[in-house]
Amino acid sequence: MDRIPILRMGNFLLVTIQIDLYDRLATNLESDLVQMVNKTEAKGVLIDISALSIVDSFMGRILGNIGNMARIMDAETVVVGMQPAVAITLVELGLELKGVHTALNVVKGMELLRNKINDLDTGENDEESAEEIATNEDSTE
Amino acid sequence: MDRIPILRMGNFLLVTIQIDLYDRLATNLESDLVQMVNKTEAKGVLIDISALSIVDSFMGRILGNIGNMARIMDAETVVVGMQPAVAITLVELGLELKGVHTALNVVKGMELLRNKINDLDTGENDEESAEEIATNEDSTE
Repeated sequence: MDRIPILRMGNFLLVTIQIDLYDRLATNLESDLVQMVNKTEAKGVLIDISALSIVDSFMGRILGNIGNMARIMDAETVVVGMQPAVAITLVELGLELKGVHTALNVVKGMELLRNKINDLDTGENDEESAEEIATNEDSTE
Repeated sequence: MDRIPILRMGNFLLVTIQIDLYDRLATNLESDLVQMVNKTEAKGVLIDISALSIVDSFMGRILGNIGNMARIMDAETVVVGMQPAVAITLVELGLELKGVHTALNVVKGMELLRNKINDLDTGENDEESAEEIATNEDSTE
């Protein structure tokens, strides 16, 4: 198998990694995912790793790369379904999953993504609200 | 790998088959899926086979089994993402995917499932409507 399928679910993309990534598979996944974000204008990427019993430094770097690439394309990345043993090993090895968020499962991951997107949307409005407050303060003085 | 991860998405379950199923993997998938339908009370199962470049009679039977098992548990099964070449081969080989519905992709599969569930819901009300119509006819006579 040369490619991991990327599923579109509304505003989000879902990738289920079921086998250990080797170089070519990882490179293909990165490029497919960036193209898919571009094509579908997805705002979030969910990566399910519940089938993986090990996450090594290579896999950690690939996940980080994906997260950074997606962010440049204005999409957030959430890694979901990590097995407890994987989390323990990650910390013991001192590996950090930089550039990605994590959530317990797909449903919680989608909630997290929705909140992030809403935060970004309201974040843009925050300046307006701040201005309004400033105006109110002026008027009361 | 002994197990294919089953993801819960609201009312539905999603399975992405990325590698050829062998006996044990198939049996595990069947039992995992039935247990998951039972546990989550899912109303639909989506099986994505976009990564498969071949669907043989074994795979066809497994998909049919899953569809029949899920139906007994009151859930519909939709196979999504079939590659065009796979569809051609299926027909040429004379294989039918009995017991499952098909849809082009996950989004359309979810729509199909939602419609099926709604139909079932309204189907129960149809008798009442039919009775109402009968009553109306009686009154107009």
